Amino acid sequence: MTATPVRFGLFGSGRIGQVHAASIAASPDAELAWIADPFIDGAERLAAQYGGKTTTDPAEVFASGEVDAVLVASPTPTHVDLIRAAVEAGIPVLCEKPIDLDISRVEELRPVVAAAGVPVALGFNRRFDPGFHTARTRVAAGEIGRLEQLTIISRDPAAPPAAYVAVSGGIFRDMTIHDFDMARFFLPDIVAVTAFGTTTFDEGARQHGDFDTTTAILKSASGALVTIINSRHSTTGYDQRIEAYGSEGDLTVANQGTSLVSLSNANGVAAGAPFEASMVTRYTPSYRAELAEFLKLVRGEESASPTFDDGRAALLLADAAQRSATEGVTVEVDLT
Amino acid sequence: MTATPVRFGLFGSGRIGQVHAASIAASPDAELAWIADPFIDGAERLAAQYGGKTTTDPAEVFASGEVDAVLVASPTPTHVDLIRAAVEAGIPVLCEKPIDLDISRVEELRPVVAAAGVPVALGFNRRFDPGFHTARTRVAAGEIGRLEQLTIISRDPAAPPAAYVAVSGGIFRDMTIHDFDMARFFLPDIVAVTAFGTTTFDEGARQHGDFDTTTAILKSASGALVTIINSRHSTTGYDQRIEAYGSEGDLTVANQGTSLVSLSNANGVAAGAPFEASMVTRYTPSYRAELAEFLKLVRGEESASPTFDDGRAALLLADAAQRSATEGVTVEVDLT
Amino acid sequence: MTATPVRFGLFGSGRIGQVHAASIAASPDAELAWIADPFIDGAERLAAQYGGKTTTDPAEVFASGEVDAVLVASPTPTHVDLIRAAVEAGIPVLCEKPIDLDISRVEELRPVVAAAGVPVALGFNRRFDPGFHTARTRVAAGEIGRLEQLTIISRDPAAPPAAYVAVSGGIFRDMTIHDFDMARFFLPDIVAVTAFGTTTFDEGARQHGDFDTTTAILKSASGALVTIINSRHSTTGYDQRIEAYGSEGDLTVANQGTSLVSLSNANGVAAGAPFEASMVTRYTPSYRAELAEFLKLVRGEESASPTFDDGRAALLLADAAQRSATEGVTVEVDLT
Amino acid sequence: MTATPVRFGLFGSGRIGQVHAASIAASPDAELAWIADPFIDGAERLAAQYGGKTTTDPAEVFASGEVDAVLVASPTPTHVDLIRAAVEAGIPVLCEKPIDLDISRVEELRPVVAAAGVPVALGFNRRFDPGFHTARTRVAAGEIGRLEQLTIISRDPAAPPAAYVAVSGGIFRDMTIHDFDMARFFLPDIVAVTAFGTTTFDEGARQHGDFDTTTAILKSASGALVTIINSRHSTTGYDQRIEAYGSEGDLTVANQGTSLVSLSNANGVAAGAPFEASMVTRYTPSYRAELAEFLKLVRGEESASPTFDDGRAALLLADAAQRSATEGVTVEVDLT
Repeated sequence: MTATPVRFGLFGSGRIGQVHAASIAASPDAELAWIADPFIDGAERLAAQYGGKTTTDPAEVFASGEVDAVLVASPTPTHVDLIRAAVEAGIPVLCEKPIDLDISRVEELRPVVAAAGVPVALGFNRRFDPGFHTARTRVAAGEIGRLEQLTIISRDPAAPPAAYVAVSGGIFRDMTIHDFDMARFFLPDIVAVTAFGTTTFDEGARQHGDFDTTTAILKSASGALVTIINSRHSTTGYDQRIEAYGSEGDLTVANQGTSLVSLSNANGVAAGAPFEASMVTRYTPSYRAELAEFLKLVRGEESASPTFDDGRAALLLADAAQRSATEGVTVEVDLT
Repeated sequence: MTATPVRFGLFGSGRIGQVHAASIAASPDAELAWIADPFIDGAERLAAQYGGKTTTDPAEVFASGEVDAVLVASPTPTHVDLIRAAVEAGIPVLCEKPIDLDISRVEELRPVVAAAGVPVALGFNRRFDPGFHTARTRVAAGEIGRLEQLTIISRDPAAPPAAYVAVSGGIFRDMTIHDFDMARFFLPDIVAVTAFGTTTFDEGARQHGDFDTTTAILKSASGALVTIINSRHSTTGYDQRIEAYGSEGDLTVANQGTSLVSLSNANGVAAGAPFEASMVTRYTPSYRAELAEFLKLVRGEESASPTFDDGRAALLLADAAQRSATEGVTVEVDLT
Repeated sequence: MTATPVRFGLFGSGRIGQVHAASIAASPDAELAWIADPFIDGAERLAAQYGGKTTTDPAEVFASGEVDAVLVASPTPTHVDLIRAAVEAGIPVLCEKPIDLDISRVEELRPVVAAAGVPVALGFNRRFDPGFHTARTRVAAGEIGRLEQLTIISRDPAAPPAAYVAVSGGIFRDMTIHDFDMARFFLPDIVAVTAFGTTTFDEGARQHGDFDTTTAILKSASGALVTIINSRHSTTGYDQRIEAYGSEGDLTVANQGTSLVSLSNANGVAAGAPFEASMVTRYTPSYRAELAEFLKLVRGEESASPTFDDGRAALLLADAAQRSATEGVTVEVDLT
Repeated sequence: MTATPVRFGLFGSGRIGQVHAASIAASPDAELAWIADPFIDGAERLAAQYGGKTTTDPAEVFASGEVDAVLVASPTPTHVDLIRAAVEAGIPVLCEKPIDLDISRVEELRPVVAAAGVPVALGFNRRFDPGFHTARTRVAAGEIGRLEQLTIISRDPAAPPAAYVAVSGGIFRDMTIHDFDMARFFLPDIVAVTAFGTTTFDEGARQHGDFDTTTAILKSASGALVTIINSRHSTTGYDQRIEAYGSEGDLTVANQGTSLVSLSNANGVAAGAPFEASMVTRYTPSYRAELAEFLKLVRGEESASPTFDDGRAALLLADAAQRSATEGVTVEVDLT
């Protein structure tokens, strides 16, 4: 690729902003031009490492004329305004999930995005995880016939701080939203949701009326069922697996190990290492592939980037699950 | 064991009756004394192979004075009457699942069984499967701390004939009932159920208004969640697995393979054999262990045999799942 | 199979004799007619369990006219005379390995066996192990192209008593002999042997000048190489595996586990059980299949039973390995 | 690490030179200062990608005063002279294996290196492979008790071109040399070698009197045995495994897969991808770790880099194996 690199404006220099900055720096097709964060120290640290100008004011980035695309990795409440500013400026945007915690703000923004004709991609990076992507490609190629059941196991190494839980919008909107999108990656047409959630170990969840343990079932228009099993903790590290059962066979994505070494002795057989516990290590390849796909979009090429409407659909499913789990009802959804 | 063998009366000489006859014959502590089946040819075939007298009339078995215990493997509608006759005759009974398709008949029989003080065991053989039994023992021993989530994957090799589906009582009462009992083997106190069912491949299910694909979630009093994933077919053979997630670790029971031989070549790595597709081969050890446990009950020893109330609880859960899946509601249950 | 069962005379009621008695008893096509053992208590115990007359004198068995076949499971020094007596009596014989510890006695017996035309089979039961048998069948079917390398890992759970080591003939003639035969099961035409042996843990081996740890390499006429890795102990239970590398792929026979249950926690992933440590449990299926194959031989049907010459070839390889390991030379062999 | 980066002179810009150039460029502690290659185009291509000056003359590199260390990745016959030049210039050197094909040239250089006191490291990168390194660390920590047997399976995806075979010095000096060093990584004190080699598939090997298939056994002073199984091809990709058997348990390093996705259907269970076939992908982490270790040496810190004497020992073992395989003898070696 010998084209001029795409100049990026990055909003947010926190954990996920750092991941994206590293992806941009690692890509021969992208460069970090501006970093905006009200917490200017964070922005400057990133700039020192990867280059770029810094500011506390996003408007300065848009006004600079020096960015070809923006990446929104700032706190969720800022997403809607930043997407709006980007499409008004005609600048393609890759926005972290969720679009917002309030579906009404998303619905309001939706026609603006649709009318603008400016590319807006959502940061559902797990679509680009090598295992999940391969499984979906092979399912789509008909390798297991018609897809009948999909199981998504998605357990995080450890619960987030209580302060984070407080503003997270709840486990369904914060964590399961990745899995709702994964469900739709395989089966876009979800028509109903039922879910149970309980709080059994996380004090932060208990304080803020959130769940730490959930299971949701989705029904697709085709009759295929999706099961999503979530927990805010998993002692053995990330537990991220998919099982797809079809009329002709099953495709399984195993969990990602950290070592090829195993021990056998009088106690049995043991792999000596737990699963990956670092989000960065576990998902770096998917973030890099996500960026590469977004760059296609920026360049006007065909792209598999998840869209604004994918972001909206995942939020609708999260809202439905939240309602199902709190009110004890099965919820029909209309994602169109 | 040098005690006199327990003399069995067996009701039913169909597929499951044959499995039990083989178990009785293989046990040094049991012998087949009588076989009753209105289809006398079946009874005589079993008697020729394993010994015992034959009759078309169950009453003759009870009247003979020659049986120390009975095993009910006849069609479901006969179960209630045979259990009643057995407890009235003071003869311990091991009855195949379900007790009945109609919970009201079960509730009516319940006080009779309770009052009689005669051992009644239910044929939930999977509790005695070596893998499942070990997992439950290790969970109970606290090896993974507090149990938070349990996933039961239970897919049969192939859908039963349409004629069977017609009288089966539906997938939840016929097939999932094993998994409802398995859920309660780990977490007895289930308080709520939600379920989805769809019909996507099996013509028999479609004809008789049944589902072929279901997922159910159970909530326990402790807040632990159980997920049960069922399908009437699985191209690769039986898919029978359990995953138990706890506060300190996970216990997993893998699917049972049929060969240790695998092939690697330019196409990848392949085990050359599908999973077990024969119910008899897959579950013979569990049927033998089930019988051994029932023999303890007959001899008045401590026994882990599932009880009449376990049979009732599983049926209550099946009824709840059926209602949830057909009416789109979450159903609270009271198993006490 | 409705033919009259083959009546067996069994010589020896020790550990391996008991295994064979159980196989005979379990076969609908065989029955135990006579058991001979100078230690008459052992014979009587087997007779009590499985039927049959007993004697201390093998000659009485041959003279009885009541046996259709004999199974030689007595101590190695008796094998040659019992085979000779059997073929002179025209009675088919299945003899445990090795034929003798002294190749000259084997060579002397060889023309007698050849001239008699009476079936003589050698007890290399591992040829009939389901995994090894499948691998060999698939290799023979060309699934991995031309066989280039074969690795046989064969480690026993624990070293035998020193008293046994004293009369065993050494590890190559006693233990590796199974693996030499396995090598020839895949690649009959071995032309050269080199081996190393050391004594690092077993006091019995040290006392009697034997090795406890050995590796041998065999070269076949085709250029394929076989590696045999042996140890008298393995803390995790039996370690019995085969890897076959071919021009088009590899076939691997994994070790046989004892449980499907595994544990994951902060320490890693662990299967909770060691490998099988009981010879009887590990190899019962192969002993049963070995008997079934021998019964074909007795009935004059085509049979895959290893022959007297297979027994001689394995001993020649054992002698070559012993010489190589003790004298530090590579040894050419002629198995024709 | 904020110290001034170590400036490297790189000799050779071929396949392995490119791997090292990438490692140097990826390290914050190293930089590429000079690249020498008589084939100047290769040097210039690397310089364009990673920086550095270029020359066809190694002497210019040493004379420049601009290199703190040199990396020798040029053809084998140049190694001895370049090491000599480096130590005479007082510049630390990391040299690819083997030191030379002729042990007498190595013996001649040995005292020069010893007297110079300049760090000389050998490029046995596999010591730094995460799996192998972890296994060795755990063995050294006593996790499996005393090491009794070590099996090294090392099969390359495909045979090299005949032209390469012609100058390779033979499979033992060219390919197995990595495995001889790996054997010594676990068990330094090897005292005897026996080996078989055959030529069954590679035309290049046949033309040049080389083997394509070999197995070697090494005996250590402690009595532990090492088996090395090599092939010039493996249809399923790299096959690089280690099994270490000890008095208290076994440690196994599995082969490195390329996908977490597997398929189950009526034909069985299949991982959809072969093993890694690219040397660069397979071993990049080990080359990076090797460089990091060498940088410690350059900075005068404690380092685990293999030494000149490790390079000499591996060549002595290769010579012994070559002699054993061609002359049919077991060869004693003295590595002191």
